[in-house]
Amino acid sequence: MNINENYKNLNESYLFSTIAKKVNDFAAKNPNMEIIKLGIGDVTRPLCPIVIEALHSAVDEMGQKETFKGYGPEQGYDFLKTSVQSYYKNFNVSLELNEVFISDGAKSDLGNILELFDINNTVLIPNPVYPVYVDTNIMSGRKIVFIDATEENDFLPLPDYEIKADLIYICSPNNPTGAVYNREQLTQWVDYAINNNAIILFDSAYESFIDDETLPRSIYEIKNAKRCAIEFCSLSKTAGFTGTRCGYTIVPKELIFDGMSLNKMWLRRQTTKFNGVPYIVQKAAAAVFSEIGQKQIHENLNYYKQNAKVISDTLDKLNIKYTGGKNSPYIWLKCPNDMNSWEFFDLLLTKIGVVGTPGSGFGINGEKYFRLTSFNTLEKTKEAMGRFYELFK
Amino acid sequence: MNINENYKNLNESYLFSTIAKKVNDFAAKNPNMEIIKLGIGDVTRPLCPIVIEALHSAVDEMGQKETFKGYGPEQGYDFLKTSVQSYYKNFNVSLELNEVFISDGAKSDLGNILELFDINNTVLIPNPVYPVYVDTNIMSGRKIVFIDATEENDFLPLPDYEIKADLIYICSPNNPTGAVYNREQLTQWVDYAINNNAIILFDSAYESFIDDETLPRSIYEIKNAKRCAIEFCSLSKTAGFTGTRCGYTIVPKELIFDGMSLNKMWLRRQTTKFNGVPYIVQKAAAAVFSEIGQKQIHENLNYYKQNAKVISDTLDKLNIKYTGGKNSPYIWLKCPNDMNSWEFFDLLLTKIGVVGTPGSGFGINGEKYFRLTSFNTLEKTKEAMGRFYELFK
Repeated sequence: MNINENYKNLNESYLFSTIAKKVNDFAAKNPNMEIIKLGIGDVTRPLCPIVIEALHSAVDEMGQKETFKGYGPEQGYDFLKTSVQSYYKNFNVSLELNEVFISDGAKSDLGNILELFDINNTVLIPNPVYPVYVDTNIMSGRKIVFIDATEENDFLPLPDYEIKADLIYICSPNNPTGAVYNREQLTQWVDYAINNNAIILFDSAYESFIDDETLPRSIYEIKNAKRCAIEFCSLSKTAGFTGTRCGYTIVPKELIFDGMSLNKMWLRRQTTKFNGVPYIVQKAAAAVFSEIGQKQIHENLNYYKQNAKVISDTLDKLNIKYTGGKNSPYIWLKCPNDMNSWEFFDLLLTKIGVVGTPGSGFGINGEKYFRLTSFNTLEKTKEAMGRFYELFK
Repeated sequence: MNINENYKNLNESYLFSTIAKKVNDFAAKNPNMEIIKLGIGDVTRPLCPIVIEALHSAVDEMGQKETFKGYGPEQGYDFLKTSVQSYYKNFNVSLELNEVFISDGAKSDLGNILELFDINNTVLIPNPVYPVYVDTNIMSGRKIVFIDATEENDFLPLPDYEIKADLIYICSPNNPTGAVYNREQLTQWVDYAINNNAIILFDSAYESFIDDETLPRSIYEIKNAKRCAIEFCSLSKTAGFTGTRCGYTIVPKELIFDGMSLNKMWLRRQTTKFNGVPYIVQKAAAAVFSEIGQKQIHENLNYYKQNAKVISDTLDKLNIKYTGGKNSPYIWLKCPNDMNSWEFFDLLLTKIGVVGTPGSGFGINGEKYFRLTSFNTLEKTKEAMGRFYELFK
């Protein structure tokens, strides 16, 4: 048996283990310092009451033979697909029911979708980046071309017609930079994709953080996007489903390449290698899309947005440059005094006990940048940013 | 963008849609005939009380910020991995905790594991077979060699040293034939795999149906198997989790090929492309492994086994040859009077309103065979086999 040699090309990421080690060492030596973590990418608010109610009710169904559910459709129950379909109508996007695929999260589908494409495709990935886009392509041995997301382009790179790419990753609102593409910019990407017979893999996991109504929440708000884009979304950040696991992937029927429908190929992939999301989780997800559910999740989202504002207001007062904070749970700041990412990490940890994520962990263009997140409590976020202000004022 | 051309080589399976159409047509024309389905591969008994209790309790945890769970370890929580580890001790198999990976079901992992192996490997698959083994390999463009499972070898093919295979699928108890390998036979496969530097992908999804204590429940009961086998198991049939989704995959640390640890490669694959099984589902699965849980699931298993006995007793009385029925939820019978699979299907449907699965749907060696399952109610199984007896006596 020959192994997949591509795995030898993967770099081990020591980012989060290095952070953990530094924090633990510091905590051991400074037992009286309260350490506040603004580096976490996980939510902290519990599931909404209506979601809890839906879960209990679905669990009861599973305990009675009259209402018990065995295998469901691999692509998700119609009741949930209908909810997603209705949700998209808020953005004036009209979807057919079987363009919606229920997933156990955007991460799985972002990785697995690559199976539909030949190995001999060139992949375009922004730098800095969510590392999963890179690693999944290294695993399958595809050629990767990076495109610079820098201060010069507001961390929103636009297409370069000199580069011929087949698969293009776009995450907007972006992780880690918090930058959000506007309609005109996304239109440029759609035009590029159609001109190059390319596919955009559009990660909209953070769309629910967008407050600015002029910004697109879905790539399908852009004309012709159904001819060139697959969209991945998740309830992880929207509704606190990081440990509950549900998302959705949109594969438009217009995506026909070499006579093959990507929608049908993805259906075939999912029915062959996936058995669907648990019934009880799908019921919970449907509750998120209900009127009460939307109200309740927005209370949580507003809580996180308030935290983001505490962070960005502090940076504004200190004249520290950043992207995100608005329309995004992430704040991507330029390290003051030309410090590099790890220097800044060490300074924050040792001087004020605040933990963030060094930007260099997301790619070479992340050097001298730093990511803070809005997922801690309001009290702790205020305390951390108070200390931050005192340190840099 | 170039698509994955291998998808063009997939055959559409019309097996279950053809069955559904025939049944619906017959039902429409014969409204007074009660149709009984003994073809279903899905469970019908609800989740056990202890599992329901665990689910409610975990749901409550998700609703309180003190106990809320966000991202968990992609490979599963230790509490559940420890349960699986203890379960294997029943078979005198000792596992390290990080050899256990919690999955959302055997189907996902059986497909995804292939990513660890180079495309240029030869895959050995028994015929008849669970179609997923075939389709997942066609999708990735691997060479497939079939090995005959026939009456002559009791549907338990043994290694042929003339064939050089790299990846070997073994499902025991088998779907669709219900045949179960004994220790001596599995030892032959382990020896073959080690001699050929091959990997056995061992699907033990039906192990909990084994009553005969001389038969192996895990391939790791066989000496040296940890040097050549990955085992996939599921709570789908064991505990009625077909709609709840939880399984486990064992990747021993001894599996080192070309200097790479398959255990580490699988960990890397899962942490990159998967975000773990929902916390509430993992709590439910842990309840299955508790003392009360084991007692309760065995009540359900015994119910299905009783159905299997109703079927096999009828076939015994009629002198119809079959495998399975003991140590398996499936009964694989030879169609009487040399009928082919679809002829027999039509006869059962039209004469006695009983639905099963034509063996030819599982591969060429399934022609003239037929699969019945034990997952309907006892009452309906008795009624169906009563009619069956009258028809063939």
